[in-house]
Amino acid sequence: METEKILQDFKEGKITLEEAADFFKMEPYTDLGYAKIDNHRKIRQGYSEIIFCQGKNNEHLLEIFGKIYQNEGAVMGTRATKEQAELIISRYPMAKYDEVSGVICIDKEKELIGKICILTAGTADISVAEEAAKTAEFLGNRVERIYDVGVCGIHRLLSNMDRMEGARCIVAVAGMEGALASVIAGLVDIPVIAVPTSVGYGANFKGLSALLTMINSCANGVAVVNIDNGYGAGYMAATINRMGVYSE
Amino acid sequence: METEKILQDFKEGKITLEEAADFFKMEPYTDLGYAKIDNHRKIRQGYSEIIFCQGKNNEHLLEIFGKIYQNEGAVMGTRATKEQAELIISRYPMAKYDEVSGVICIDKEKELIGKICILTAGTADISVAEEAAKTAEFLGNRVERIYDVGVCGIHRLLSNMDRMEGARCIVAVAGMEGALASVIAGLVDIPVIAVPTSVGYGANFKGLSALLTMINSCANGVAVVNIDNGYGAGYMAATINRMGVYSE
Amino acid sequence: METEKILQDFKEGKITLEEAADFFKMEPYTDLGYAKIDNHRKIRQGYSEIIFCQGKNNEHLLEIFGKIYQNEGAVMGTRATKEQAELIISRYPMAKYDEVSGVICIDKEKELIGKICILTAGTADISVAEEAAKTAEFLGNRVERIYDVGVCGIHRLLSNMDRMEGARCIVAVAGMEGALASVIAGLVDIPVIAVPTSVGYGANFKGLSALLTMINSCANGVAVVNIDNGYGAGYMAATINRMGVYSE
Amino acid sequence: METEKILQDFKEGKITLEEAADFFKMEPYTDLGYAKIDNHRKIRQGYSEIIFCQGKNNEHLLEIFGKIYQNEGAVMGTRATKEQAELIISRYPMAKYDEVSGVICIDKEKELIGKICILTAGTADISVAEEAAKTAEFLGNRVERIYDVGVCGIHRLLSNMDRMEGARCIVAVAGMEGALASVIAGLVDIPVIAVPTSVGYGANFKGLSALLTMINSCANGVAVVNIDNGYGAGYMAATINRMGVYSE
Amino acid sequence: METEKILQDFKEGKITLEEAADFFKMEPYTDLGYAKIDNHRKIRQGYSEIIFCQGKNNEHLLEIFGKIYQNEGAVMGTRATKEQAELIISRYPMAKYDEVSGVICIDKEKELIGKICILTAGTADISVAEEAAKTAEFLGNRVERIYDVGVCGIHRLLSNMDRMEGARCIVAVAGMEGALASVIAGLVDIPVIAVPTSVGYGANFKGLSALLTMINSCANGVAVVNIDNGYGAGYMAATINRMGVYSE
Amino acid sequence: METEKILQDFKEGKITLEEAADFFKMEPYTDLGYAKIDNHRKIRQGYSEIIFCQGKNNEHLLEIFGKIYQNEGAVMGTRATKEQAELIISRYPMAKYDEVSGVICIDKEKELIGKICILTAGTADISVAEEAAKTAEFLGNRVERIYDVGVCGIHRLLSNMDRMEGARCIVAVAGMEGALASVIAGLVDIPVIAVPTSVGYGANFKGLSALLTMINSCANGVAVVNIDNGYGAGYMAATINRMGVYSE
Amino acid sequence: METEKILQDFKEGKITLEEAADFFKMEPYTDLGYAKIDNHRKIRQGYSEIIFCQGKNNEHLLEIFGKIYQNEGAVMGTRATKEQAELIISRYPMAKYDEVSGVICIDKEKELIGKICILTAGTADISVAEEAAKTAEFLGNRVERIYDVGVCGIHRLLSNMDRMEGARCIVAVAGMEGALASVIAGLVDIPVIAVPTSVGYGANFKGLSALLTMINSCANGVAVVNIDNGYGAGYMAATINRMGVYSE
Amino acid sequence: METEKILQDFKEGKITLEEAADFFKMEPYTDLGYAKIDNHRKIRQGYSEIIFCQGKNNEHLLEIFGKIYQNEGAVMGTRATKEQAELIISRYPMAKYDEVSGVICIDKEKELIGKICILTAGTADISVAEEAAKTAEFLGNRVERIYDVGVCGIHRLLSNMDRMEGARCIVAVAGMEGALASVIAGLVDIPVIAVPTSVGYGANFKGLSALLTMINSCANGVAVVNIDNGYGAGYMAATINRMGVYSE
Repeated sequence: METEKILQDFKEGKITLEEAADFFKMEPYTDLGYAKIDNHRKIRQGYSEIIFCQGKNNEHLLEIFGKIYQNEGAVMGTRATKEQAELIISRYPMAKYDEVSGVICIDKEKELIGKICILTAGTADISVAEEAAKTAEFLGNRVERIYDVGVCGIHRLLSNMDRMEGARCIVAVAGMEGALASVIAGLVDIPVIAVPTSVGYGANFKGLSALLTMINSCANGVAVVNIDNGYGAGYMAATINRMGVYSE
Repeated sequence: METEKILQDFKEGKITLEEAADFFKMEPYTDLGYAKIDNHRKIRQGYSEIIFCQGKNNEHLLEIFGKIYQNEGAVMGTRATKEQAELIISRYPMAKYDEVSGVICIDKEKELIGKICILTAGTADISVAEEAAKTAEFLGNRVERIYDVGVCGIHRLLSNMDRMEGARCIVAVAGMEGALASVIAGLVDIPVIAVPTSVGYGANFKGLSALLTMINSCANGVAVVNIDNGYGAGYMAATINRMGVYSE
Repeated sequence: METEKILQDFKEGKITLEEAADFFKMEPYTDLGYAKIDNHRKIRQGYSEIIFCQGKNNEHLLEIFGKIYQNEGAVMGTRATKEQAELIISRYPMAKYDEVSGVICIDKEKELIGKICILTAGTADISVAEEAAKTAEFLGNRVERIYDVGVCGIHRLLSNMDRMEGARCIVAVAGMEGALASVIAGLVDIPVIAVPTSVGYGANFKGLSALLTMINSCANGVAVVNIDNGYGAGYMAATINRMGVYSE
Repeated sequence: METEKILQDFKEGKITLEEAADFFKMEPYTDLGYAKIDNHRKIRQGYSEIIFCQGKNNEHLLEIFGKIYQNEGAVMGTRATKEQAELIISRYPMAKYDEVSGVICIDKEKELIGKICILTAGTADISVAEEAAKTAEFLGNRVERIYDVGVCGIHRLLSNMDRMEGARCIVAVAGMEGALASVIAGLVDIPVIAVPTSVGYGANFKGLSALLTMINSCANGVAVVNIDNGYGAGYMAATINRMGVYSE
Repeated sequence: METEKILQDFKEGKITLEEAADFFKMEPYTDLGYAKIDNHRKIRQGYSEIIFCQGKNNEHLLEIFGKIYQNEGAVMGTRATKEQAELIISRYPMAKYDEVSGVICIDKEKELIGKICILTAGTADISVAEEAAKTAEFLGNRVERIYDVGVCGIHRLLSNMDRMEGARCIVAVAGMEGALASVIAGLVDIPVIAVPTSVGYGANFKGLSALLTMINSCANGVAVVNIDNGYGAGYMAATINRMGVYSE
Repeated sequence: METEKILQDFKEGKITLEEAADFFKMEPYTDLGYAKIDNHRKIRQGYSEIIFCQGKNNEHLLEIFGKIYQNEGAVMGTRATKEQAELIISRYPMAKYDEVSGVICIDKEKELIGKICILTAGTADISVAEEAAKTAEFLGNRVERIYDVGVCGIHRLLSNMDRMEGARCIVAVAGMEGALASVIAGLVDIPVIAVPTSVGYGANFKGLSALLTMINSCANGVAVVNIDNGYGAGYMAATINRMGVYSE
Repeated sequence: METEKILQDFKEGKITLEEAADFFKMEPYTDLGYAKIDNHRKIRQGYSEIIFCQGKNNEHLLEIFGKIYQNEGAVMGTRATKEQAELIISRYPMAKYDEVSGVICIDKEKELIGKICILTAGTADISVAEEAAKTAEFLGNRVERIYDVGVCGIHRLLSNMDRMEGARCIVAVAGMEGALASVIAGLVDIPVIAVPTSVGYGANFKGLSALLTMINSCANGVAVVNIDNGYGAGYMAATINRMGVYSE
Repeated sequence: METEKILQDFKEGKITLEEAADFFKMEPYTDLGYAKIDNHRKIRQGYSEIIFCQGKNNEHLLEIFGKIYQNEGAVMGTRATKEQAELIISRYPMAKYDEVSGVICIDKEKELIGKICILTAGTADISVAEEAAKTAEFLGNRVERIYDVGVCGIHRLLSNMDRMEGARCIVAVAGMEGALASVIAGLVDIPVIAVPTSVGYGANFKGLSALLTMINSCANGVAVVNIDNGYGAGYMAATINRMGVYSE
């Protein structure tokens, strides 16, 4: 990222005017008119772009899905409806759709690294947890699922502690009062990514209650992502898990 | 409370016109002009009035305090400042003030009944817990204090479970994310009264966070009182504990 | 719950390694993969698990319903849609569905104990009240229903006071401004569980208004559960009523 | 207010150019630079301006107070601090200050008309109620004060019903859960102006709780003014009471 | 309402035991089980009950509608869906339904009294305004409709000022920023009842914006009812208008 | 706007009584009963009225659309559904509908002036941006669209800076965290109109998050319009752009 | 801003390596360690930096104030306390402090251009309005102040309309219900920058009420800045006014 | 953590009854009555307890500070007032106090590992950033401070990108609109911990604005801690950084 080096290389003819100019114009992207696909994200952030399907029209969705698949040999979309999934599969029959999480993807063979534990408080939180799990797996991480271990029956959590051994990051998914994140963070020595869900009724205010609980956690080593944002949690966990593995 | 009986008694001359009229005008009170002391509360609700000292001017406070002491032989005030306490003690030297909870009272000898457990998540919740404890004790209940057992170090709670044996009601006092209520409610078979406190910082929004957590509890057998309302929790717990005892 | 005793018993061969280990792993549960049925809840909390039907898929719902019925000889579900109810009844024809409250259950003959009064402010609050009533009855409590006695016509409440005689707990269900809880708590000497409902329009903000009213009650002996949470109120009331009865 | 008439009068010379122009420029005011005193408010609204003292600097306050006194022979200010009051009295010794309500005024002899009842739930609501009462009295209305009749001891309210006889408007002042407005509105056939106060603690959120309660009232004939806005309620009640009297 | 008089009458045999007892049990009502129709509301409040149709099931709606019509010879329901209206009309063909406001009623011939002006800011506020207008007319008041005079084109309001002459109360209905109430209140000397509507988009938060605007009005003589509560505003206005007329 | 001049003209007979009266009654409008079309808006504000189609019934929509088209020779409506658009086109076949933005219009040939840049953070913000763009174009302004340049890939924004050259106003449209407005405002020296959108999920609370972000912008030269209010932003930008051009 | 041109110039020796590198490193700043003064802001945005004094310690404030004064020959600070002002004046005696607005500055002689009108609803809004006025004047704009013209006495606003003639931008400053912005925007054809203030009490929630009112304005040509942000409004208005003038 | 192993060891006499019992009672703590110091936190979580000084009374603070220092040879407290700091230093003269962050500590010599970058948007965010920095350093991590690089002058951030090289975690501290977290997360491939601060004014609502911005970040790899919670961010960053290092 040394400006002087690029300039010197250019002056000395090692790189062309276009190459230098491109550099200073920063990372390139494919401009589809209605969208600008961020081609260099993999270089800049380590992972290529994942598609947020919700609200995209059919034509755009197919074009973007195809473009990325063509470039990367793998592609993943989140929040895909059943209709969107069927459309994609009719064009790309090797794509696989998971109805619980709304994830559709064409994946490559790869060895999964490290270990991320994904916990849910109840069964209703599973769709969010699966979005996190599938994101993390697509990004190359090994995932251990521990579901339905909420604090109203704490023995279920305690008797599963050994399954967390060796994990580099925990994702705690919970709605209602969202206390799971605090309890687990008090028991482990690795980072906990908390995901509030909109599960619950009445005064949960569509996840606000769980969000506030998690942000106010009295335990150390907890940070929070958006309500129902399984994707964001899976991505964050992957970033952390990768660090442990790459450093080994 | 049988309307016909009063009317029949009156017709038969067993009671006078005034007595009957008084009855239908419902319970009487002492009108001090600026306030109406509810003399019949003990008959109606089982306990006489407790004074909320905050914001009362000195003259009024002394008059009300004295009036109730004279009628009942015992009296208690909550949220008393040090200045108010000193004023009262200068007039009623037998009054005792507890600075932590802001409770001032003149109590009668009595045998404490049943058992109420009062838990706090942290040390900063103790002032609210003590308001609850002193209220419950003034109302004649035995109290067991179990402080600083918040969920970020859950072993502290688990190793104190045996101290809750025999209790008829639990009061769970917690600020920050307030998860204590859910965890304890999942472990016991008696009613849990949850008290959110304003302890915490940032997004706890003066106790709103803990309030929402407790109202959304995934555990059974939890009901909630106002933020920092130790008095209300102590009173509610007393009502429940009394029931168990009186029925014995 | 004496750790030393279990250990000593084990050393002396009174219990096997498995039995001891099981104990320390705490209460067991049935792991269905997608859910962990809390089998020991009855031991721990006095009542077995009640199913929250909302959002469960058909297969899971049937399996859980059947599992519990098989273990306990009785089973109850809340928030069941008409479709879910029909599905269950097609398999378990003895199950009974109440459309107003959304409760489905197979109940055992039993003598109902004590007395819980359930009040509503208006007719629109009845579905929540019935969830509370049916929960309390399933848990073995006698229930007295007093509906449509809101404060805008207070004579309707006052003229029903005698029906509350002998009750051990009151459940006050109200939407809109939710003032019923305060008024009734000022008139009785037993615990009042307040249930805010989402009934109303405009600035009731889906029950927030009634929730705040009840949490801020100026009357003693009121505690609050979540918006529209009839189940939670019925359960809490059962816990309190049971105490009075068991102590007798 | 007939445009054509003014124009015709002007054409016929009955009024001058300035008079006509003044009319169309609408109501005049005194421009003090930093403020524009609304001299014609009495003509337009029936009452002259009342001063909101809070935050005004000494010089401005004295000038405005004097100006209005000079024009009207009477003047009133609300939310005056003790310091402001002393300043004004040092200049206008006939001014009277009421510390409870923060009202300062120089009043004229006059016969008070009609009847407005002002109720409070507790003693802490009295300062707001007195602002309402003094405003209504300054505007020429007879006021009946009925304080400390909140719903947690409803017999206090019921036994004071006869004092409301003959009233043309009720002002209900209450903090905490603010249920007083609904209960009283269900018992009378005259308009109820509800004033939420910031009295309470915890989740009353500085009066928001009482405001929501009153806006969501299930009773007919209730309308609400701002939190702690005794002045606004007194003014509104005066407007209503006046109508009854003037029509007689 | 003189307790002593009833008692004396009873003692002297002028009234029977039942009559006296009935009185002290307060106002009677018809208990339909699921509802308690408040028969004495007309005596207590001057108007008989109006039905809130929303959410009522067909059977109940028809029974209540019929009961009141039979007692009073007139009946009105608000928030009736087209389906509910058709059902009622099939049974009571003389009932008339207004689709804009959702009001259904069978009215009696009567002379309308006084004058209430109902203003809207825009055309989208008309459905709420019509609910207010039809309520006021059913209760016997003359109504003047002045629609689409919002503040973004203030000349439309100013040029309609003369239509407000002689009115005893103004109802100002506005969504979005709801400024209409303040502007009109600054121009007239009669009470203004402000009705915030949920009309608008984005940050109007379903009427909260307009509600806050109206509650914070800088103008005198404004009081506010619930969001979209045309019925409440019409009722309140009727109460005020009636006072002016009855006093004449 | 000189009152005296009109009056003098009238006195001297230069204008008739009606003309003068009309003036003082302020700007006229066409009263359709259910609506008051503001005919003089063009004189007062420089642009004629644009129709907000949402919620208007068919008959009214057609009449208003026709009326304005007839007066102005051009007409535009926002938030039109596909059904409304088809209805209008069946009557006015020259009308054009854009489904993305919901804009329908009949436009006149005209030269577009100046330059307004409209940016979006993502592709989901395009519908709001197009409402802004089409409004600005209808009002006669040249628009440059720069879409999908959100801050999570800031190089996309930086590499498009030269396209903003010569612009007189920027409209920044963004949902989620809405940071685009701050970043662009720090890079340019012209006014930035920020439009928060409801795009996002979880804790964006339907656009509140982006609204708060933009209102709290640390950058200079940003002002904000309502959530999803593309029309308002386009109008505001037009007003600013026009100023630059007209002054040239 | 043409990347290629800079590169070509550098290759051809027209500019040095440092000059080229500096360019690509973007605009420079002075790094004081605790702060980075943005020296190139004038080039980038047209105005040099203005100091936000609040919370800065004395040493830092003096250093930054001096640094900018030295570079620019003029300097301005906002939100300065009296103590901060005295400190600065003791070092820079030519600095002038305005206590109402909290602005301190050393200004250069210059001709003020164009015209910005600044309106307030009440006298309590003047301090915010003066911050706007002084900011605009420091940035070289002519300002017309029109204070205390709120909507509760709309004739005060209407009779000042002629003073707005020739203005290029209006700043509308209002607290309480903040309706001023909508009313003025309906009457003029230039951009209106709305500034909500925290003036008011009760349910104004520290300016939230006025903010929502302004964001939801039904009038065209309104955009909003932060609560009490006079500086931001003055800056925005300057940017708009400048455009009109520079284009002339 | 294998239950069976402990039991077997005990049966075979390898460990005593007390040792086994202790294990099952979980981690021990020191019970000071008013507090329970979590001695085993280091074993469980990798770090010993850090003291939250705010609100602790002098006696307790000194005892806890001393206890931990004695056990660990190092101790740190956050949110210490100047008075608390002086008290501690008078007893432990080797303690060092940093007034900006409110951190007091006695540290051990140690080699700092890895690299954490801490960024602030403005100078007012520095106190929170320093709490994070000092926490991370106390826990053994190397910290790089990059302050005053907010998005309103984005070149300041871009020109400091090279200082982030080699970092394993970024802490982004920002108030106002808090956009810094999104921008930086779009540029790096390591986890970003976002800390909203209460810095700002008006509609920042004490940090809520920045919190929502960060939670809604459109960029990948961001998770959020509580408002002003520098300690929490420093701790979380340490946990992540440690992982990278320990794995090396």
